[in-house]
Amino acid sequence: MIETDALVIGAGPVGLFQIFQLGLLGINAHIIDSLPYAGGQCIELYPDKPIYDIPGTPRCTGRELTASLLAQVAPFQPHLHLGQEVSLVEKQPDGRFKVATTKGSIFITKTIFIAAGVGAFQPKHLKLDGLEKFEGAQLFYHAEDATGLADKDVLIVGGDDAALDCAIHLATADIHKPKSVTLLHRRDVLQTSSDRVALIKALIETGSLRFKVGQVTGYDEHGGKLALAHVTDINGDTEPHSVDAMLVLLGLSPKLGPVAHWGLDMARRQVAVDAEKFSTSVAGIFAVGDINTYPGKKKLILCGFHEAALAAFGAAEIVFPGVTTQLQYTTTSSRLHQLLGVEATPTP
Amino acid sequence: MIETDALVIGAGPVGLFQIFQLGLLGINAHIIDSLPYAGGQCIELYPDKPIYDIPGTPRCTGRELTASLLAQVAPFQPHLHLGQEVSLVEKQPDGRFKVATTKGSIFITKTIFIAAGVGAFQPKHLKLDGLEKFEGAQLFYHAEDATGLADKDVLIVGGDDAALDCAIHLATADIHKPKSVTLLHRRDVLQTSSDRVALIKALIETGSLRFKVGQVTGYDEHGGKLALAHVTDINGDTEPHSVDAMLVLLGLSPKLGPVAHWGLDMARRQVAVDAEKFSTSVAGIFAVGDINTYPGKKKLILCGFHEAALAAFGAAEIVFPGVTTQLQYTTTSSRLHQLLGVEATPTP
Repeated sequence: MIETDALVIGAGPVGLFQIFQLGLLGINAHIIDSLPYAGGQCIELYPDKPIYDIPGTPRCTGRELTASLLAQVAPFQPHLHLGQEVSLVEKQPDGRFKVATTKGSIFITKTIFIAAGVGAFQPKHLKLDGLEKFEGAQLFYHAEDATGLADKDVLIVGGDDAALDCAIHLATADIHKPKSVTLLHRRDVLQTSSDRVALIKALIETGSLRFKVGQVTGYDEHGGKLALAHVTDINGDTEPHSVDAMLVLLGLSPKLGPVAHWGLDMARRQVAVDAEKFSTSVAGIFAVGDINTYPGKKKLILCGFHEAALAAFGAAEIVFPGVTTQLQYTTTSSRLHQLLGVEATPTP
Repeated sequence: MIETDALVIGAGPVGLFQIFQLGLLGINAHIIDSLPYAGGQCIELYPDKPIYDIPGTPRCTGRELTASLLAQVAPFQPHLHLGQEVSLVEKQPDGRFKVATTKGSIFITKTIFIAAGVGAFQPKHLKLDGLEKFEGAQLFYHAEDATGLADKDVLIVGGDDAALDCAIHLATADIHKPKSVTLLHRRDVLQTSSDRVALIKALIETGSLRFKVGQVTGYDEHGGKLALAHVTDINGDTEPHSVDAMLVLLGLSPKLGPVAHWGLDMARRQVAVDAEKFSTSVAGIFAVGDINTYPGKKKLILCGFHEAALAAFGAAEIVFPGVTTQLQYTTTSSRLHQLLGVEATPTP
């Protein structure tokens, strides 16, 4: 169990800057993200696309912005808890919150900052009635979960790099080699590097990998086990495909997730906040960035930075009750220089 | 007379970013500043001091931030009108504003953005009753105004680099050489480069320059002309000093200036705005950055950036009446790429 003053949910640009602003006020924080790395949408949706409207940064990619923010926040040694989602938020008798994650981490925190953007990025699921009961046994949504597939007929559903790399990995396995590996993609064109295409083609030619065009539109089970996938091709013709295990790698899609059930006032699937402290309807819980809404709200990263700054001051009232937190400037404050670990500029 | 959609008052970081946000919405703007260069407080107060809290920029000086913002705003070819202050703001019958400056520029604009920070930087004045009547004739507050001083007894008041350079310039003049040049500084130590100190010492030794320690505490006039300055030294002893011309170069100090008299709702010398569009009590006039106030306001540059973004959308309602301006992203919008003059990233 980790006791902390502040817990930030979401390690996108706004969540990272939230840590920075809390740090400047002397508030230590932990940060959780569903992705296995920091950066949020910047990393997941546009790692290599240029962004032009970060103030003072005429051009940077999502990856570069993330790196800059991680460097900026480094003096505060943020505690990142990645690859996990919040599964429980519970107000404690002492006014603090108990927060649990899907990886079993437990936090007791005075304040919570929801910086969850468009929600937690989760693998896109195949929407077929009852299919979910095979999850974890024969149905997998993460490439790294696919272990113990020796001598099995494996169907990989997907066509992006993650799906292709998984297909290549299994088709070339030395140990625990599956009986067969089939890659099922909805199109007959693969959008990837020419190296990958060449490798896939070679594996198909040698019979190590099969390639099918189509989508899974149904399934059959035998004795409680997934036995056949119904594969429908572009002409609408369906044929059965024998499977022991199915790896569905259709990319990630954001889900608002449990935030919607925390009892916070919502407005059109956004968390309603005031524009003074960006606090939600539950005292001690703040919401910043794309997930919140208030009059005039624009979903811009630069607006989230402002929201994080004001929310930090809102939290200071809770973390340091009875103390008025004064705004200090990083240009002049020796206390901030100490926190940032930088040498003060000698004044003449 | 210049007709424009938007006029920004103040070319500090927030005023510059205001131009950028207006540009993204297709709104062309002019910008005015009292200083002869862009950058505002960043350039005037801390050009070489590091700033640590610009989001995504772990460290930059005031000068570097200004340069980055000028580069960011460059695609919109902003029209800078420097070294002048607003002298008049008048609502026109058609709802637009007439704005005049101290350099005689006249603008007719649909919207005004006050991004004036702590006010217009103006030379610090000597506060002596009635002294102002000599201004422009025998009393000067800008080094560049000091012309036609041949054969005059000149007193330079001040000790910073601008004062020292003016003293050196006049004491070494080949033409229009003053009869005498005296530098009056309140301390006997000069905080400047060793080169300047050596030059000043040499000029004093050769008699080209006199140096006095003290302050001007009074004056005498003869026949409507300034004749004597009363110089009080650190011991409190006062003696008269004969002067034909006085150059007062005591540095710059921000003055709120005429903004206070535009009929805007004010709160403790700040312009009151809403936090939705950052509009003032006068429709069409917005206020962003350190000069405004609203619940939760923190005087941070990063907050001013957010305010500028939302104010731009507020202005769009006035500039493009009846049209709903949609938020577009610089990462994906081909219209914004066109405005920014950048190549769109080819989508695979």
